[in-house]
Order: sequence, then C-alpha cells, then structure tokens
Amino acid sequence: MRQVTPELYARVQHFYARQTHALDSGNFKEYVDTFTEDAIFHHSPDGPPARTRAGILAAAEAHREATKDDRVTRRHYFNQIVLTPLPDDSIRATLYALVVRTRHGEKVPDIWPSCLLEDVLTVDGDEILLRSRHISYD
Amino acid sequence: MRQVTPELYARVQHFYARQTHALDSGNFKEYVDTFTEDAIFHHSPDGPPARTRAGILAAAEAHREATKDDRVTRRHYFNQIVLTPLPDDSIRATLYALVVRTRHGEKVPDIWPSCLLEDVLTVDGDEILLRSRHISYD
Amino acid sequence: MRQVTPELYARVQHFYARQTHALDSGNFKEYVDTFTEDAIFHHSPDGPPARTRAGILAAAEAHREATKDDRVTRRHYFNQIVLTPLPDDSIRATLYALVVRTRHGEKVPDIWPSCLLEDVLTVDGDEILLRSRHISYD
Repeated sequence: MRQVTPELYARVQHFYARQTHALDSGNFKEYVDTFTEDAIFHHSPDGPPARTRAGILAAAEAHREATKDDRVTRRHYFNQIVLTPLPDDSIRATLYALVVRTRHGEKVPDIWPSCLLEDVLTVDGDEILLRSRHISYD
Repeated sequence: MRQVTPELYARVQHFYARQTHALDSGNFKEYVDTFTEDAIFHHSPDGPPARTRAGILAAAEAHREATKDDRVTRRHYFNQIVLTPLPDDSIRATLYALVVRTRHGEKVPDIWPSCLLEDVLTVDGDEILLRSRHISYD
Repeated sequence: MRQVTPELYARVQHFYARQTHALDSGNFKEYVDTFTEDAIFHHSPDGPPARTRAGILAAAEAHREATKDDRVTRRHYFNQIVLTPLPDDSIRATLYALVVRTRHGEKVPDIWPSCLLEDVLTVDGDEILLRSRHISYD
C-alpha cells in the first residue's frame, strides 16, 4: 500500500485547495479535471451519482443554472483531512466541508451546508485525481 | 530542541484531523489514545482539569450524556496551527478551534464555541501525542 | 521559477498561521514583520493601499483605534491556499479568509468578512515574507 507521508499530506491539501478554487470561480473545466475520467460522485442523498467527467460537468452546470438568480458568492472550505492507504494503492480521504455563502448586498455570510466527504484519491507520480466522492450532509 | 520542520508541520495537521474525527464520530477510545497516559486537559474555565486518559474519557462520556438530547451534529475545526519547540524536546502548538453545530431538521449550522487551544505535543518517532491542552473560550 | 514543493506548501501554511495569530493578538510588531519592508497592502476597495511596514503598522493601529469599543474577539482563518510560481522567483498565493467575531458577553460568533486574498510571497532561504496583498470582499 502507498505510504501516507507528510509530503503526500501537503500535496493532498494543495489538491483540495485548487479544486475548491476552480469550483467556486466557475472554472468547471479545471474543476472536472481534478476527477478521474471514470469518477463517481455521490453528491446528493436522493439522486443518482454523477458518473464520468462529462457527467460531473453536467451536474456542475445544472447546479449553476439552478442557482443563477441567487446572487450568492460561495466558497468551499475543505478541512480536517484524514488520509488512509487502501489496498489497491489508492488513498481514502475523509474530510469536513463547509460552504460559506455571502449574499450580494449583505455583509454577514452564513454557512450551508456542513458535510462529511468520503473520497478516494489516485496518486500517479505528481498527479492526484479524485476517483470517487460521497457526500453526507449534516 | 526539536526542529519544527515542514514534515512535522504536516504530521501535526494530520494528527489534529484524526483527533477531531475521532471525537466527532464518538470514537472515544481512538480520541483518548491521542493523549499521553498522564495528559492534563483544562477544558473548562470554571472546573478542574481532566487528568489521565481515563479522566479525559470520563469527561468526554459525561459531555455526551449531558448533550444526548441535543440532536446536534458537531464538527470540530482546528486551524491556524503555530508550532514552537520547547526546551524539553516537546512542541508547543497554539491553534484556533471552532465547532460547527448542525441541529437535526435544520439546515443552517451555527458556530459555537470559538476557542484558542494551547497544547503541548510529544513526538516520539512516528507517534505524536497530546500531553496537555488548555482551552480559552472567546 | 521556484518550485512549489510540499515542503514549501507546509511552510507557507505555518507562515500564515503565525501572521494571523500576531494580528489577532494585537502583536503588531510581529505582524508587520511578516511583510517585506516595501510591501503594498490593498486592504480596502475604496481607499488607497497601505505601503511599507510603517504604513501597514499605521493602518493596523488605526483599525484597532476605530474598533476599540467593539468588545469583539476576532480570529482570522486563512485556508484553501493555492500556490503558483511567478517568473521572478516569488510565489503567488491565492487563499480564502474568514474573520470569526465573538462579541463579549455573547456566545455564538458570526463571520465577517469572507474574502479572497491574492498575495505575493518572497522566499529567501528559511524566510517567507509577504510582498503584496490584495483583498476582495465577497
């Protein structure tokens, strides 16, 4: 199994920081490229998962369309990352996520949602990619 | 004195992430094992500190019992970690802590409390343990 | 260009943790020393930037004077740090910032503001310094 070194820990933190910036800035091409081509994303407790980069892109675009009149700036905070090696050389990442939402014209943001993310990461040389994500909403 | 290297910094972040997950998921055995056997935990401004793993376990269980009807999911966020070497080869960690609380059936969580944690960590090979913690509530 | 290694990533996290502790504890000497002597700090969308350590110190002291009757504890959280090498051997850091405010006598803090920070860091041996900062408020 792959060893979880301090170097890998810092690289995974950087990976998640880049992913959240891409998502929050609406750079969906860069966002989707943080997933493997065949990734599975269980983003909703009620609906089916998104599958493949194309499917995850479609889900992100549908979310943007559904919220386009919200006039809200969203920032994803991913923290408290725990990494565990898996037998197939991938890495289980279990982490907390918050979205800080600032409504335009208002000053004080609120938080929604608070979640637990259960991810599987593949590490290939310098490249980290997200193979699966399961979100549990608090 | 022990040097605070980038490797140690990442290891300490990972240590705290594991500690918060253990606490929030109610895995108190794993939580208590992040303390040294003789640890002192000043958790309350008014009461005496908890001492030893057994005492810290009893305090955690008493807190769970006191809040068992709250129907709240709590997630501890530990961030902004500053490490300073101490003369006895241990490490002073000064960090910020938030608890994000989501009440079941409600969507928007609140934060309580916001704290400063003053910890002393022992580092022995690959093992990091918490020897003392002092919490100051904002 | 300077390579963004996992070691540098952890060092930058530690740098920001120290900077926020210095600022929040009112240790402005230590805070100002995290900037280069000739730093530029665009802290306000409406006003001119603060320039040089002396100017940044004056801005911090003016802010403290303006808020001295607020009876609020402020804690800066800097997270989701993305680092990019710049051609002149400096590092672009793009990160999210929150301030958690606890009013004395009240328990539940609020968050204000939520920001995007666009920083330029210089790295010289073991020393990291902030050469410029631009804040965008959500």
